[in-house]
Amino acid sequence: MADDNSAVPHPAAGERVGVRAQTTSGRWDDVAVMPYKQTAEAPFQDITRQLLFADPNLACEWRYFEVAEGGYSTLERHAHVHAVMIHRGRGQCLVGEVISDVGQGDLVFIPPMTWHQFRANRGDCLGFLCVVNVARDRPQLPTADDLAELRSNPQVADFIRIGGE
Amino acid sequence: MADDNSAVPHPAAGERVGVRAQTTSGRWDDVAVMPYKQTAEAPFQDITRQLLFADPNLACEWRYFEVAEGGYSTLERHAHVHAVMIHRGRGQCLVGEVISDVGQGDLVFIPPMTWHQFRANRGDCLGFLCVVNVARDRPQLPTADDLAELRSNPQVADFIRIGGE
Repeated sequence: MADDNSAVPHPAAGERVGVRAQTTSGRWDDVAVMPYKQTAEAPFQDITRQLLFADPNLACEWRYFEVAEGGYSTLERHAHVHAVMIHRGRGQCLVGEVISDVGQGDLVFIPPMTWHQFRANRGDCLGFLCVVNVARDRPQLPTADDLAELRSNPQVADFIRIGGE
Repeated sequence: MADDNSAVPHPAAGERVGVRAQTTSGRWDDVAVMPYKQTAEAPFQDITRQLLFADPNLACEWRYFEVAEGGYSTLERHAHVHAVMIHRGRGQCLVGEVISDVGQGDLVFIPPMTWHQFRANRGDCLGFLCVVNVARDRPQLPTADDLAELRSNPQVADFIRIGGE
């Protein structure tokens, strides 16, 4: 999904103390809107990334991702887990072989080594909060064999996006 | 604030995989509403606690606290940090000596050893998400000397609640 840029440095002096207001839905004072991935090989579309909390004293990072209409996060898996809450909009997510509708406030837990992808609904965006360990492995992309296995389930075959669609 | 119950066991088998829906604002499928504290000496009022994500693979816990009208979290400090997002309602928070209005979506970072307290507005509740390290120290309550120091600031003196008001 959205597990990238482990090499991006944290704020050297730690997180800003006190309150940072949400200025409009999915945008905050003093939080930069960043590109989703810095590597070209991971397919994704129409998604931005914001780092809400990253402090040397916190063992996790708290990020915000926003998928625009028609967009999707990278189909991927990794040993670390994702704790997700939908912040705005509506869409679907794939976790393993299960595709679910999700909307504001819903929780999604992605266990280790489980394929997952988020997509926004037509006419809507999907903004989600994602808490992840600071110390984590790099995401794996599906091989040709993995894709064949995933596509043996017709619903999953119909859902997944791997670029070029 | 809301840093309690370190001794409460995590789900033995890990977090439930996939989606748990928000059934109404601040309530989720398969998430129990629990008392805020189990110890009598920490003053607080009209607040509940929910553990949204707690998995052996996650270095943090993601909790939800809801302060009812007139309620407040415990005035406390500790070496670990709190990453907070307001989920619903409106209120105020004290972080150090700064009192701020907060509403839905606002972020609050509480650095180490910083006095903090959350209060709901009159006629409203204040529900907030709080991410915290699994491994953390116990909160400290203010001594008489700490309270005298805090109350040397008239705004802080007016804001803080330590029970019996």
